[in-house]
Amino acid sequence: MIKNKPTLFTSLSPALIHLYDVSSSIVVIIDVLRATSTIATALYNGAKAIIPVDSVAECIRIGKQIDSITAGERDGQVAEGLQYGNSPFEYPRDFIGNRTLVLTTTNGTKLLHMALEKGAKDVITGSFPNLSAVCEFLVAKNQNVILGCAAWKDRINIEDTLFAGAVIERIKDHFNINCDSSQMASSLYQEAQKDMFEFMKVKNASHYLRLANYGLEKDIRYCLTSDVANVLPVYQEGKLVIGVY
Amino acid sequence: MIKNKPTLFTSLSPALIHLYDVSSSIVVIIDVLRATSTIATALYNGAKAIIPVDSVAECIRIGKQIDSITAGERDGQVAEGLQYGNSPFEYPRDFIGNRTLVLTTTNGTKLLHMALEKGAKDVITGSFPNLSAVCEFLVAKNQNVILGCAAWKDRINIEDTLFAGAVIERIKDHFNINCDSSQMASSLYQEAQKDMFEFMKVKNASHYLRLANYGLEKDIRYCLTSDVANVLPVYQEGKLVIGVY
Repeated sequence: MIKNKPTLFTSLSPALIHLYDVSSSIVVIIDVLRATSTIATALYNGAKAIIPVDSVAECIRIGKQIDSITAGERDGQVAEGLQYGNSPFEYPRDFIGNRTLVLTTTNGTKLLHMALEKGAKDVITGSFPNLSAVCEFLVAKNQNVILGCAAWKDRINIEDTLFAGAVIERIKDHFNINCDSSQMASSLYQEAQKDMFEFMKVKNASHYLRLANYGLEKDIRYCLTSDVANVLPVYQEGKLVIGVY
Repeated sequence: MIKNKPTLFTSLSPALIHLYDVSSSIVVIIDVLRATSTIATALYNGAKAIIPVDSVAECIRIGKQIDSITAGERDGQVAEGLQYGNSPFEYPRDFIGNRTLVLTTTNGTKLLHMALEKGAKDVITGSFPNLSAVCEFLVAKNQNVILGCAAWKDRINIEDTLFAGAVIERIKDHFNINCDSSQMASSLYQEAQKDMFEFMKVKNASHYLRLANYGLEKDIRYCLTSDVANVLPVYQEGKLVIGVY
């Protein structure tokens, strides 16, 4: 191990996050399809802030308290009582600009709150649309990192692992990486990077099948595109806002 | 999903096994370096049975009760109070033939007992030295399968994932596989299969580093070699014995 470099670990499921020293690390919340892609997009398009919440009920409650847009899906449909869904295409600039989005998602929000409870130093969100911003931030901070995949109901998924791999490929020289999950993510990304959409399709990725079944191939393609919403969402006082680094 | 085929899932860590329906499945316990490779080898070389136990104390206790060999390591050394270690090379035919081995290992035994507690239909152990026997058994049984990686203190490791991938590559046509972990294991194996030893080395696999540090490259090479101890260890009444299929 080379000294003076911070460590990088990858947690491929929220059910594994307790294995890592969250309290001494920056945690990157990764929920590629589609929560963290939509978060980057909404902020990129001028949203004032995004409030991530656990439940539909909480989303409705906050939506009544503050001037905001409430959003979230359950089983591929806008959840009852909410206004909008999880697609990044629902949040163009002329709609979301200068507004607050209250967003409920199952997997990403759960992991975010787990990281906060375990005392993470900084919590940011990552997705292909803001890949470069995430990588530049992590290199600039020069602190221990945990790449936290939100997965699907704790089951490891391909797309979050691919994003972890993409980050590792970019920044690995700056970190000590003694972590098989990181090596596996990196290998998977190397294999898939030429055409990740095709890779997801050929591999019968469970989330590809789920979203394609709803006719959302366009969302999948967007969520696998690098740097189209290249901002850094950081969690501060209950909200995700654009961070400066 | 094609009907009439059983399902196959891969659990990359004991911390994920609860996500799968263990009670309706055959569970393959995978602890490539080195527990399940040594189990296959000892049985192949004529051991009467292997009793897997959780702790050194339990190993010593059973060793006093029955005529047997006690074995197990902690931190790369034969554990205090036990006679032998975890290396497959310690169990040649003229030593282990017709004897009972009481073996304590940290990760593999833990997962085996978890699978039993959750009511697995059949529990077998898998490793490269008995790859074909495992695959032939699973195809012949035609029932749901969970490939259970023992990992390292719940952290996912490359070698157990590679073995899961090797099994999947062989038997995938016989199963419905809607499982990203399985797809990832399969991809990793395809990448590594030409020279798995070199792959482990190049990727800085955590277990490669640990064992190479103890001078055990020979063990690693053996444990990555297919069908050199091609028997089927099945768990029956507290013991692993050679199964007929």
